[in-house]
Amino acid sequence: MFFLSDGTGITAETFGNTLLTQFPQETFARETVPFISTPELAYQVVETVNELASLGPLPLIFSTAVNTSIRAILSTASAHFIDLLGGHVGELERALGTRASGELGKAHGQGNLLRYQSRMAAVEYAIEHDDGQSIRALENAELILIAPSRCGKTPTTMYLALQHGILAANFPLVDEDFERGELPDPLLPHVGKCFGLSSTPLRLHQVRTGRRPRSQYSSLRQCGYELRSAEALYLGYGIPHVNSGVMSVEEMAATILQRMHLHH
Amino acid sequence: MFFLSDGTGITAETFGNTLLTQFPQETFARETVPFISTPELAYQVVETVNELASLGPLPLIFSTAVNTSIRAILSTASAHFIDLLGGHVGELERALGTRASGELGKAHGQGNLLRYQSRMAAVEYAIEHDDGQSIRALENAELILIAPSRCGKTPTTMYLALQHGILAANFPLVDEDFERGELPDPLLPHVGKCFGLSSTPLRLHQVRTGRRPRSQYSSLRQCGYELRSAEALYLGYGIPHVNSGVMSVEEMAATILQRMHLHH
Repeated sequence: MFFLSDGTGITAETFGNTLLTQFPQETFARETVPFISTPELAYQVVETVNELASLGPLPLIFSTAVNTSIRAILSTASAHFIDLLGGHVGELERALGTRASGELGKAHGQGNLLRYQSRMAAVEYAIEHDDGQSIRALENAELILIAPSRCGKTPTTMYLALQHGILAANFPLVDEDFERGELPDPLLPHVGKCFGLSSTPLRLHQVRTGRRPRSQYSSLRQCGYELRSAEALYLGYGIPHVNSGVMSVEEMAATILQRMHLHH
Repeated sequence: MFFLSDGTGITAETFGNTLLTQFPQETFARETVPFISTPELAYQVVETVNELASLGPLPLIFSTAVNTSIRAILSTASAHFIDLLGGHVGELERALGTRASGELGKAHGQGNLLRYQSRMAAVEYAIEHDDGQSIRALENAELILIAPSRCGKTPTTMYLALQHGILAANFPLVDEDFERGELPDPLLPHVGKCFGLSSTPLRLHQVRTGRRPRSQYSSLRQCGYELRSAEALYLGYGIPHVNSGVMSVEEMAATILQRMHLHH
């Protein structure tokens, strides 16, 4: 299975993988070839695909090549050729009543300077405010993720910063907070920006075991206690929350954006 | 324009935006509605779309709904309905000679625990090793990004960690290094893992001006000096490099993965 593109290949990968989840019984070796920007490069790829085709089952190609001559060359390979863009461009032309530009898609291109700077600033903010490290400028946060250790605060924060330019801090909840039954003091002025993560005891136990096997910290009992206590805090303060134990980082991010009405 | 999905909506957004880059003369208000998992939610969305349709031009819907009854409901809205999945699923069924599962795509679903843990570990590694903060365990890095300040080291590192689980450190190049004409000492055992970022003087000047306006640091002259010196270092040590001034974070990441043969 090849993901071929004259751009980064991100769209071909994302979309091809989505389609393949419909065929869970099949397994594939996957290769992405980005930046196929000249006929020469396209012919090289065709050669590679043909070689592979001569050795086994017919390969599958997902293509998002925009340039029509590149696309024409790629489609000559000995493979099932799935053109992810072509047909929809025609549909869109009819819907919009105008012609497509036929130029290289810039979905993951440079974009404008402002967007770049806001993402950079968000990533730096996320690094500075990871795991409660700094309470400086917490009032600038658009979102504060709170949770016990290892519920996914850090990767989710980073995803929101990088993909959506959200200024997000994250703050750990620890035994001391659970015993007091209160949020940590620095969070009290910002309850409205807090979003809680939870998990399932088993999942948290597995994740923590990877870090510190056979410890009190990773015991099922401790994990259960922290999760129950955190959920009680969320409910007490009316803080929206999700269970990260059954979600990917992307799903959590999409859920948080929706629930907190955060959209840039 | 609506991006509708019974999952996170990431695929609908990514792909819809790619298609729209073909129509640069058009501008759209964009709204993503993820997690349309029940007929009730689908009918609500249809109502919203119909309301909008009654006020202005016919809306455009990009749908990646997998569930056939959800898809059927959404397609009744007063809009141009572009079904990004349906047709290709049929193509794939013919290519693979098997039936699609018809179940919700899990492209951005939970995935397996190992993948989750490796991404989490990579993000934490990236945070610890951001901007040369720690030279501990630098030998574990798969990649070390080097560049003058503000060339995009941090967001690119974070993207590689989050999307690809790459253990990446980044290290700043400063005047002292340029005067010596040598890489910083901690990097010397790891030259083979280094990848250099460069930029254009104007772009770097703009980015730095956002941080410290009218400073020596952000002057065109200083930016030009640092970029020329950094490129001389890259050439001297045979370190592959790209110019980030004309690329997005995604393009840089795809380029780096390809040039450094890093694929997970």
